[in-house]
Amino acid sequence: MNLNKIFSFFVPKDKVFFNLFDRASTNLVETAVALKSMLNEPNKEVRSTYIKKISDLEHVGDELTHELFTELSSNFITPFDREDIHYLATSLDDINDYIFASAKRVDLYNIDKVTAPMIRLSELLEESVMLIHKSITLLKNLDNYTLLRENLVKINSLENHADDIFNLAIADLFNHEKDAINLIKHQEILQHLETATDKCEDVANVIETIMIKNS
Amino acid sequence: MNLNKIFSFFVPKDKVFFNLFDRASTNLVETAVALKSMLNEPNKEVRSTYIKKISDLEHVGDELTHELFTELSSNFITPFDREDIHYLATSLDDINDYIFASAKRVDLYNIDKVTAPMIRLSELLEESVMLIHKSITLLKNLDNYTLLRENLVKINSLENHADDIFNLAIADLFNHEKDAINLIKHQEILQHLETATDKCEDVANVIETIMIKNS
Amino acid sequence: MNLNKIFSFFVPKDKVFFNLFDRASTNLVETAVALKSMLNEPNKEVRSTYIKKISDLEHVGDELTHELFTELSSNFITPFDREDIHYLATSLDDINDYIFASAKRVDLYNIDKVTAPMIRLSELLEESVMLIHKSITLLKNLDNYTLLRENLVKINSLENHADDIFNLAIADLFNHEKDAINLIKHQEILQHLETATDKCEDVANVIETIMIKNS
Repeated sequence: MNLNKIFSFFVPKDKVFFNLFDRASTNLVETAVALKSMLNEPNKEVRSTYIKKISDLEHVGDELTHELFTELSSNFITPFDREDIHYLATSLDDINDYIFASAKRVDLYNIDKVTAPMIRLSELLEESVMLIHKSITLLKNLDNYTLLRENLVKINSLENHADDIFNLAIADLFNHEKDAINLIKHQEILQHLETATDKCEDVANVIETIMIKNS
Repeated sequence: MNLNKIFSFFVPKDKVFFNLFDRASTNLVETAVALKSMLNEPNKEVRSTYIKKISDLEHVGDELTHELFTELSSNFITPFDREDIHYLATSLDDINDYIFASAKRVDLYNIDKVTAPMIRLSELLEESVMLIHKSITLLKNLDNYTLLRENLVKINSLENHADDIFNLAIADLFNHEKDAINLIKHQEILQHLETATDKCEDVANVIETIMIKNS
Repeated sequence: MNLNKIFSFFVPKDKVFFNLFDRASTNLVETAVALKSMLNEPNKEVRSTYIKKISDLEHVGDELTHELFTELSSNFITPFDREDIHYLATSLDDINDYIFASAKRVDLYNIDKVTAPMIRLSELLEESVMLIHKSITLLKNLDNYTLLRENLVKINSLENHADDIFNLAIADLFNHEKDAINLIKHQEILQHLETATDKCEDVANVIETIMIKNS
C-alpha cells in the first residue's frame, strides 16, 4: 500500500487508472476462459480445479476494484469523469461476480450434466469480455473511434444473442424438465450467466458515455 | 443521429430533455395498457400479439433511454442535476424492463391461467405510470407543486397497495399450489410485476428530489 | 417538517446528517436484534409479534432514509461528498429492506422449522450492524482511524464468514431437501439473509471511501 502510494507520485494519474482497468479486464478474460473450460470439462474433479481457479480470479478482481475505488477517493484529478470511472469499475466487478456465482452453483448444486445453452452462454461471455478488454485499451487513445464504436456494437449484439439463447433454454427447461429441484438448479445457473452478459452491456454503455464526453 | 444533433442546436436544452422524458413516459403508459390487455386476454394467440407489442415498446423505451444518456453526455448544461436526470432515465427504463420481463414469462412459461392478483397488479401499474406521465409533464412548470406532490403521494400509496396484493398472493400460492413448477412460474411473474411497482416508487422519489432542489 | 426546517437553521449541517445516520444505524441494530429473537422463538404467535416489530422498524428506517434524501436535496453544503452520503443512506436502507424481506418470508411461507444457518446468519448480521453503528459514530471525529479501520476489516470478515455459511447451507439444502416447495422457501430466506450481509459490506466500503477522502 505504501509502495503503491510512492509509486503513484511518479506516474501520471491517467496511467494509474488505465493500468488498473487493463489488469481488471485482463483478469476478466482469464475468468471467462476458465468458465468455458470448466463447463466443457466432463470430469467433476478436474471441473473443481477450474472452479477453484475462478474463485481465486474473483478475489483478484475484488482487490483490483478496491484499488480503483481507493485511487478514485485519493485523487482529485482523474482521466474521465469520476462517476464514469466508478460505474466502469462497478460493472467490471459485477461481471466477475456473476461469472463466479454461476461457477459456484455448478459446484454447490452438484450439477451432473452441463447443457449446451450454458456452454453457449459462456462462449458469448468470453467473446464479450475480450471485446471489453480491447475497448478499454482503445480508450487510452481516443483517436480510433470507429474501431471502438464497432466493438461496442458487437458487445451489444452478443448480449441480444445471449438473450435469445437464454429465452429458448428457459422455455425448453419449463417444457421438459419434470424434476422441480433440477429445474431450479438449471434456471439459476442460466439466469446468472445471462445476467453476466447484461453487465457486459452495461460496460459497453459506460464506455460509450466516456467516448461521447471526450469527443 | 446527425439530424438530431443539428436539431438540438436550435432547441433550448430543457426542451430536449423534457421531450425525451415525455416520450419515455408516454411509451411506458402504452406498455402498461398492453400488459393489462394481455393479462385479460383469454385467447393465447391474441395474447401473443400483445406480448409482441410489449416487446416492441420495450425496444422503443431502450432507444429513448439511450438518447437520454447521449444527450446527458453531450450537454454540459441540463435543466436539473445530472445525477437526477440519470436516475430518472434509469428508473423509467427499469419499469419498462420489469413489465417486459413479466409479459415474456407469461409466454415462456406457457401460462394457462392468469390469476386475479396478476391482473390487479397490472391495473395498479397502469395507474402508476399514468401518474408518472402526468408528474413529468408537471415538472416542466414547477408552479403547480401541490398537484405534483399529490401525484407522488398517490404513486407511493399504489405501491403500498401492490405490496399487500403481492404478499397475499404469495402466501396463497405457497398454501395451495402443490405443483412446484407451477408455483415457480407464478411466483416469478408476481415478483416481476411487484418489482415494477417498486420502480414506480423510485421514479416518484427522484421526482421529489428534483422538486425539492428546485423549490 | 416545518419544525424540522426551523430546527435545522440552528444546528450545523454536520450535526443534522450525523444525527440522522446515528438514528438510522441505531434503528438497524434494533431490527437485527428483533430478527435474531424472532428466528430463535419457537412459538409461532410470539414470532408474529417480532415480525410486526421488524415491519414497524422498517417503516421508521424508510422515513429516516427519506429525511436524509430531503436534507441532501435541500442543503448545498454537506459534511462529506454528496454521492457518499447518498450511497451510505441507500446501503443502510438496503440492509433494512433485506432483513424485513427475510422476516416477512418466514411468515408468508409459514415456516415450521427455522434452521441453524438462518440463526447463525442473523447473529452475524447483528454483529455487523453493531459495528456499522460504531463506525458511523467514529466518522464524527476522524482522529480515531485505527479503530475505524479495524471495524471495517471486521465487517468484511463477517461477510466472508456469512458467505461460507450460506454456501454450506445451500449445498446441504439441495442435497437433502426432497420437497421442492420447502427447498424454495428455505433457499429464498437464506438468500435474503446473505444479501443483507453483502449490503453491510457495501456500507463498510462507502465508510472507507469517506475515510480516505477525509484523510
